[in-house]
Amino acid sequence: MTSHLSEPTTRRLRVDRLAMAHPGDLTALAALLDADALRADDIVAVIGKTEGNGGVNDFTRGYFTQSLMQLLAQRTGRSAGELLHTVPCVLSGGTEGVLSPHYVVFSRSAAPARSGPGGALAIGTAIGTALPAHEIGRWTHVRSVAAAVRAAMADAGIERADQVAFVQVKCPCITSARATAAAADGQQVVSADPGRSMAFARAAGAFGAALALGELADDPALAAALLADFGIACARASVSSGVEVLADEVIVLGHSPAWTGPLRMACAPMADALDIAAVAAALAPLGIEATPQVRQDQRQRIVAAFVKCEPDRRGQVRGARHTMLDDTDINAQRHIRGAVGGLVAGVLGDSRIFVSGGAEHQGPDGGGLVAVIAQVPDLPSSTLSREAIA
Amino acid sequence: MTSHLSEPTTRRLRVDRLAMAHPGDLTALAALLDADALRADDIVAVIGKTEGNGGVNDFTRGYFTQSLMQLLAQRTGRSAGELLHTVPCVLSGGTEGVLSPHYVVFSRSAAPARSGPGGALAIGTAIGTALPAHEIGRWTHVRSVAAAVRAAMADAGIERADQVAFVQVKCPCITSARATAAAADGQQVVSADPGRSMAFARAAGAFGAALALGELADDPALAAALLADFGIACARASVSSGVEVLADEVIVLGHSPAWTGPLRMACAPMADALDIAAVAAALAPLGIEATPQVRQDQRQRIVAAFVKCEPDRRGQVRGARHTMLDDTDINAQRHIRGAVGGLVAGVLGDSRIFVSGGAEHQGPDGGGLVAVIAQVPDLPSSTLSREAIA
Amino acid sequence: MTSHLSEPTTRRLRVDRLAMAHPGDLTALAALLDADALRADDIVAVIGKTEGNGGVNDFTRGYFTQSLMQLLAQRTGRSAGELLHTVPCVLSGGTEGVLSPHYVVFSRSAAPARSGPGGALAIGTAIGTALPAHEIGRWTHVRSVAAAVRAAMADAGIERADQVAFVQVKCPCITSARATAAAADGQQVVSADPGRSMAFARAAGAFGAALALGELADDPALAAALLADFGIACARASVSSGVEVLADEVIVLGHSPAWTGPLRMACAPMADALDIAAVAAALAPLGIEATPQVRQDQRQRIVAAFVKCEPDRRGQVRGARHTMLDDTDINAQRHIRGAVGGLVAGVLGDSRIFVSGGAEHQGPDGGGLVAVIAQVPDLPSSTLSREAIA
Amino acid sequence: MTSHLSEPTTRRLRVDRLAMAHPGDLTALAALLDADALRADDIVAVIGKTEGNGGVNDFTRGYFTQSLMQLLAQRTGRSAGELLHTVPCVLSGGTEGVLSPHYVVFSRSAAPARSGPGGALAIGTAIGTALPAHEIGRWTHVRSVAAAVRAAMADAGIERADQVAFVQVKCPCITSARATAAAADGQQVVSADPGRSMAFARAAGAFGAALALGELADDPALAAALLADFGIACARASVSSGVEVLADEVIVLGHSPAWTGPLRMACAPMADALDIAAVAAALAPLGIEATPQVRQDQRQRIVAAFVKCEPDRRGQVRGARHTMLDDTDINAQRHIRGAVGGLVAGVLGDSRIFVSGGAEHQGPDGGGLVAVIAQVPDLPSSTLSREAIA
Repeated sequence: MTSHLSEPTTRRLRVDRLAMAHPGDLTALAALLDADALRADDIVAVIGKTEGNGGVNDFTRGYFTQSLMQLLAQRTGRSAGELLHTVPCVLSGGTEGVLSPHYVVFSRSAAPARSGPGGALAIGTAIGTALPAHEIGRWTHVRSVAAAVRAAMADAGIERADQVAFVQVKCPCITSARATAAAADGQQVVSADPGRSMAFARAAGAFGAALALGELADDPALAAALLADFGIACARASVSSGVEVLADEVIVLGHSPAWTGPLRMACAPMADALDIAAVAAALAPLGIEATPQVRQDQRQRIVAAFVKCEPDRRGQVRGARHTMLDDTDINAQRHIRGAVGGLVAGVLGDSRIFVSGGAEHQGPDGGGLVAVIAQVPDLPSSTLSREAIA
Repeated sequence: MTSHLSEPTTRRLRVDRLAMAHPGDLTALAALLDADALRADDIVAVIGKTEGNGGVNDFTRGYFTQSLMQLLAQRTGRSAGELLHTVPCVLSGGTEGVLSPHYVVFSRSAAPARSGPGGALAIGTAIGTALPAHEIGRWTHVRSVAAAVRAAMADAGIERADQVAFVQVKCPCITSARATAAAADGQQVVSADPGRSMAFARAAGAFGAALALGELADDPALAAALLADFGIACARASVSSGVEVLADEVIVLGHSPAWTGPLRMACAPMADALDIAAVAAALAPLGIEATPQVRQDQRQRIVAAFVKCEPDRRGQVRGARHTMLDDTDINAQRHIRGAVGGLVAGVLGDSRIFVSGGAEHQGPDGGGLVAVIAQVPDLPSSTLSREAIA
Repeated sequence: MTSHLSEPTTRRLRVDRLAMAHPGDLTALAALLDADALRADDIVAVIGKTEGNGGVNDFTRGYFTQSLMQLLAQRTGRSAGELLHTVPCVLSGGTEGVLSPHYVVFSRSAAPARSGPGGALAIGTAIGTALPAHEIGRWTHVRSVAAAVRAAMADAGIERADQVAFVQVKCPCITSARATAAAADGQQVVSADPGRSMAFARAAGAFGAALALGELADDPALAAALLADFGIACARASVSSGVEVLADEVIVLGHSPAWTGPLRMACAPMADALDIAAVAAALAPLGIEATPQVRQDQRQRIVAAFVKCEPDRRGQVRGARHTMLDDTDINAQRHIRGAVGGLVAGVLGDSRIFVSGGAEHQGPDGGGLVAVIAQVPDLPSSTLSREAIA
Repeated sequence: MTSHLSEPTTRRLRVDRLAMAHPGDLTALAALLDADALRADDIVAVIGKTEGNGGVNDFTRGYFTQSLMQLLAQRTGRSAGELLHTVPCVLSGGTEGVLSPHYVVFSRSAAPARSGPGGALAIGTAIGTALPAHEIGRWTHVRSVAAAVRAAMADAGIERADQVAFVQVKCPCITSARATAAAADGQQVVSADPGRSMAFARAAGAFGAALALGELADDPALAAALLADFGIACARASVSSGVEVLADEVIVLGHSPAWTGPLRMACAPMADALDIAAVAAALAPLGIEATPQVRQDQRQRIVAAFVKCEPDRRGQVRGARHTMLDDTDINAQRHIRGAVGGLVAGVLGDSRIFVSGGAEHQGPDGGGLVAVIAQVPDLPSSTLSREAIA
């Protein structure tokens, strides 16, 4: 387990949402570094949306990661290999519909003094150890994620689970090749179907976050609930899965009195794919209204938005049949990302949203969650504890 | 040109929105007919959304049409062939994302007396003559559509263009096979690319509607503006194109003092794919609010919703790059239907929406339009004239 | 169980391979009927390739079936519903690559006298009873198919299993909707994943054919081998699965001394997707050579060709990685149909081939089989018994 | 124009065909370099097949190229940027069906003495200057390619056009973004449709090769024949197009008395997608037979195979309708690569084939070409001049 040591001084988070022209395009970040607006050494995590298909054979994630690490290696003097194991880069492929390829760069630095009424958005990260294919989607995987979430909280200096606003996890998955190799080693993978293995990995990630946040017991018997009992869910966890990582990567965002700056974050569960009220619920604690769209002046305060969603596995949305699950031409996750992305983009008036499919156990069954980071300098972070939101 | 004669007595429109389990499933309509809730002879038009890909090789439209005509033939005693040429059946393939396969059945009957403050939603239809492949997407096509729109207005008893709320057109298109046959006959088609020919057909449909509504001059030189000058547009025209029709089919909906009943319709232009305010604008004249979602009691008054939309051909939505046009895996129209469908479904709280891609010249460039039919018994139809809405 | 009674007189099989312009196009068959080249009452089965995606949401099969039954109803005076339950119509969706949409019509009639050296290609059919969703892909399904195969053999007057050349089975599958309905009834389906349920249905079909042909014991414990032990296979069974049938449909083709005419059939297993020698092996017993392509004069004797194939589930073909199983954009079955279809079409010099994916337990693991019907008037059918081929 | 200087001494070509586990996987090449089997400085070109969709949004090509250049930079001490402009890396995306992702590395070195009966396969390369978007697919583009082909011939030391066996060209194309940028600059691109622009780029590449090989006059009026008169074709040119290059890249392979070693190459036109005889024709001059498949011992002599193919734009293959051009779900080029790849792989018994779609003007209309490199130490290269093959 690798994690940043938490530092005693006041820290400040900076968030940059940047456009990319293609998955290998880091020119926007390079320009910020060139202009000294940002120090490469301060970058602790990246979350991005690339324009692949979001499936097992989506290589836009690997391409972006390689490009990012190459740039950071040049600018920090560290090796790309070392950076890969210290700076989580969580990508979700698939910019269906109006969604725009972009990446959110999180950087942190020491701050001269605490400003405002006390506390601000904090970040911590952790990367686990490489997970063998046959452990993916099982209880050892759940525990591995939980340990990484706890390490990331410690890294952020977040002490209480109710201060956590959002947990982003990226898990490895099982390709046909890895399944075959595991079988040759006498090991059995949770599923040889690549798409299903990604779902199990996401489920394990959500359970792991719930475990770390004290919402779930560490009971291996609960492994049977993975992809089975969707009543178990973590409404603050967003989990992706992909071939390009071999270990779990975790980013925790929350509010801490030891941090300063204007950034605050709120997260709300989505009951289903039509739950437009959830977007309003995520905006409200940040003092932002949607009537029906966020006004231009308030929109400029939003610095990033994250959504998890899911094609309802019961084949219906509010009693009306949908066709996502029976479609041989377009993957169901691509369908739902396009639809929910269109909805949230319409409310925010901005299509630069991280919308990720596969929301198993992440928010309500058939729904998911929506989270927003905004500049709200005059809002005490303590008002954004979990109780305050709920 | 075939059209229904307008009748002198007061008429009443009925609209049924019905679910289908697959493109050959007409059991919901059969049940209504069986229960005498509806007379087969009163059915004048059907608009539906089937679960194909919406492209040239989408045969769900032909399958549904065959199934519908077979049912109506059984119940009316007329032949399926004759029905095909008298009852427009306008289908859009593609239920991306949350969209639910459904069809809207329009039926009309004589009414005993005029009720309420005067006037109601009226319907008229017309089907043109078969169009040779080489005329599709040219000025002769524009004129042919305009003639059909005028015939449909006459059929509805709508006298003034400003009383027209919505014009639905379905145009034939050019498959590779038809292009080859035309070439063998020494004729040149407007485009041998099937997707492009569908776009030209839709453009001609929009120009034809504009011509009939007095918004455009009958100037053949304007043919050069088809798919070229997107400043020319009709904000009340919704045009589809498909292999399953050989002649233009037109349905006109508008308000007329000669009709009675609770139904009213409103239509609003969408500026772009994020224009959530357009949905509110289409709902407002009907006395329905979205805050942010339509409330349950008001939702029950909505009987049908129609949307046209378009992947912005400039590659951006509000300055952010989209990837719809460069995607080799998913057709751009499928992308945009999923996104805008998700947005409108979120506002209405209902995924049974006719969302059709290919909005060339139908509403603002890069946007489209949204139209809603609702029960508003106490609203004089005269307040829904075009000026009132604008 | 419905099946034709076998008749004592000499019978003669006729096979017509016909083109379709779209899945609802039966004009080629209508023309044959109009010209009295064929009697509608003589038609006993149809096997066809339609241009859908071949998956759960492929409605081209249902569309073609409805169109065919409508035509036959008109010409025979029987109802479409009755025909559906007496004339098997086995369709495989997906004409990837060069494959051409077509259908093969099998008709039989009494023949005046036996010609030639004795015996000819015979056909028999059977349609089982409707199968509940929760029995699909289980041992009751295997037995149900076996019973139908035996009934079809009896219908053909084929007495010995070694006289059977080819067994075509079409099985129902489980859509999301059916899975949900079954769950509501307290029943558990073999898999709620639509694609996986189709695979289980095909596996059960292959086991059922093997059971009927005496190649497998009727041991319910063998249900565990379905989609698990691919050493168990039937090299003469071709099984499809689709939403458009609710009962198993079986067509048996074989050689019988009680039949006359020029038609003979041969079938060969394919070891893998590159097994071009298998095509030669299927042609050789029919006196047809491929050097490397079948010559024009011999090609005219071929009246139909059937292929089953499979994306090798181990992720490799002869040691080289393939990408079919990890592709989120194109279904693996579509990939393999295109590839093997291209190979066989190249050898035959003709792209009108029934190539069906999903060859689980149908021929060697990772491969499949290829079968050809040709006119070989001077070939005694007894030389085409299974031993002669092997 | 950048090109290698031809050297006076005898040279020797080495060809390595290597597997990749994903588009960023260069471990096979790294292993060869580590083992000193190959010197990084000797590598002059790479041709590969990556597992993307082969369309405008296929980023597997860019990912592989970045990974390759990074490796070569480490091993040669040259910068990745410089290598990009000196080592052509021509990739075709799309490993449909059985096709296996792989890359062919061409390296050359000085040889101690000439061996054998005289001459061997030679290679030369050239990279043109960056082409503005509005020149792509026009006559200036044709001339630019021709100049690069001539430079590559000079680099190889090939003096006569009839000694050229195969010309590989990679051209830039026009994305929506580039089209929009060009329009903003007041320039008009040949087509704003990305797929169409790729076709125009390939056409210009083929015309350019024909120009350099003396098969076509340098007449700008012939620009009208691009994508219009398919009677004009170069049967030795293979052209790809993609977003990842901004300048034309050319690799010329041919036979020269100044080269030594066992490698020889032959190329044959394919009349259509079923032309299996073309594969035999390309193998025959190399002393390899396919009966119907290449035997194991001869197969080991084959070191690389290259195919160009095309979905017949007339919608038929040998009179039978195909559905590739009207398919909204799968791009037509993906269809044809899968089919022809399956055919050629079946003949060769090997799925590691570079099969590239988009064969406009490259071989016969509706067909394409097939080329093979094999070890044939005892075959004088002079017998492989163009006349000898034809």
